[in-house]
Amino acid sequence: MKNILLTIEYDGTNYSGWQYQPERPTVQGRLEEVLSILCKQKITIHGTSRTDAGVHALGQRATFKGSFGIPVEKIPLAANHLLAGDRRFSPGDIRIVEAKEADSEFHPRFNALGKKYIYKIYNEREPDIFLRNYCYHVEKPLDIESMRAGAANFMGDRDFRSFMSAGGNEPESTVRTIYSAKWYQRPIKGCNNFLEFEIIGNGFLYNMVRIIVGTLVDIGLGKIATGAMPEIITSVNRQKAGHTAPPQGLYLAEVYFDKEKLYENQKNV
Amino acid sequence: MKNILLTIEYDGTNYSGWQYQPERPTVQGRLEEVLSILCKQKITIHGTSRTDAGVHALGQRATFKGSFGIPVEKIPLAANHLLAGDRRFSPGDIRIVEAKEADSEFHPRFNALGKKYIYKIYNEREPDIFLRNYCYHVEKPLDIESMRAGAANFMGDRDFRSFMSAGGNEPESTVRTIYSAKWYQRPIKGCNNFLEFEIIGNGFLYNMVRIIVGTLVDIGLGKIATGAMPEIITSVNRQKAGHTAPPQGLYLAEVYFDKEKLYENQKNV
Repeated sequence: MKNILLTIEYDGTNYSGWQYQPERPTVQGRLEEVLSILCKQKITIHGTSRTDAGVHALGQRATFKGSFGIPVEKIPLAANHLLAGDRRFSPGDIRIVEAKEADSEFHPRFNALGKKYIYKIYNEREPDIFLRNYCYHVEKPLDIESMRAGAANFMGDRDFRSFMSAGGNEPESTVRTIYSAKWYQRPIKGCNNFLEFEIIGNGFLYNMVRIIVGTLVDIGLGKIATGAMPEIITSVNRQKAGHTAPPQGLYLAEVYFDKEKLYENQKNV
Repeated sequence: MKNILLTIEYDGTNYSGWQYQPERPTVQGRLEEVLSILCKQKITIHGTSRTDAGVHALGQRATFKGSFGIPVEKIPLAANHLLAGDRRFSPGDIRIVEAKEADSEFHPRFNALGKKYIYKIYNEREPDIFLRNYCYHVEKPLDIESMRAGAANFMGDRDFRSFMSAGGNEPESTVRTIYSAKWYQRPIKGCNNFLEFEIIGNGFLYNMVRIIVGTLVDIGLGKIATGAMPEIITSVNRQKAGHTAPPQGLYLAEVYFDKEKLYENQKNV
């Protein structure tokens, strides 16, 4: 039995999130279905992150154990063919980017030292229907400089209870370490009004990135003062923070299993 | 009773094409549903172009007759609100861009002098799952210069029978006039391998743009010789042309009702 580590990207639009649920389309469920066909045995996979309905991934990681007739590096091609279904000229909405063998004890959640999320905002008066599942459309102009100033408050070890939705499991601690939290302006489609938020941390509470982004958007719109952020954090009160940004702008971008990679990434951003 | 002319954009992914069909999601059906609610009477709309399943529009045109309590220019806002459904932070997949009053005799199909279609190709080895419904993914490198040379053969009045699928209504004539047929390289996502084909003509046969693009892709891949194009056209034989490119790369971009606009557009491209 080999322990196989996968890197997976997916468009979360048509799924009720990562985690398997009976009778609902989930990313985990779809992958288990396809890998079970491929491996001719019932496969169970373990992912790093339980992304919510509508949330996307560029670099989700997951492991599964099995023995099979094809070489490990051929798994992506064979699985992606099944994932594309009958579409001849396009991939499916889930794609395995890489498969490699890991230590038998390796676990993609317990061994993760950190994660990078990206959040995309389309800041134009008129919506773009082709981006509706891939960005948060904010109509009114955002002041990126105050959003940058607001984001600076998250760096380091903080109690993020103000940025946690009810409804998840109560975590042992609500303290998390943020290594990097930055806004970028990306000119796409001939407009400058594409904003990307990139955040790297050792872990994230339930809906934490979406509430951080919603609060920063409220700051960018002038609904919350930039200077209010330290107080919002220390209040440890969800009511003090801003709204929860919608799922379609959120992408699980990268998972770090290796301290050096995590530090390197911090330096570069 | 006013005759209202609409400009409409849509993402065709989740529709069985423009034309109304009972029991199936169609763009016309969805618009009639929403406009009937808004106008409190049964509304029938007439579109310029019957786009196929999966084909998109940036500038479809359609008319409907009705009398209603709100000013004509308020129709888009009210209809788009209904079209977005319960999505608070994003538009729906159909959007009315403009509504204005037209002459009572005006018909969006019979009065159309020409149309512009755009076809998008993503020419990279690895697919991009987020583009799967919006581009044709061609893995092998395309030679854009031979595709440009091939496209030059379409200019002017030609019998396009070689570029017509069976299954549509037999047209009175298969001669069409092409005013412009050009390839553009559009750098998006940091890569140059985004190709856009833009074609303007007085009308198009069933699947004509998709077969033209498929044939030009076959030329770009070296499967068909560039020099073969005049012969393919004069053969008036569908078997001689290349494959039919998939629907998801095709966009109805503009409809021309006005000679000057049509000529102006030809000069600029």
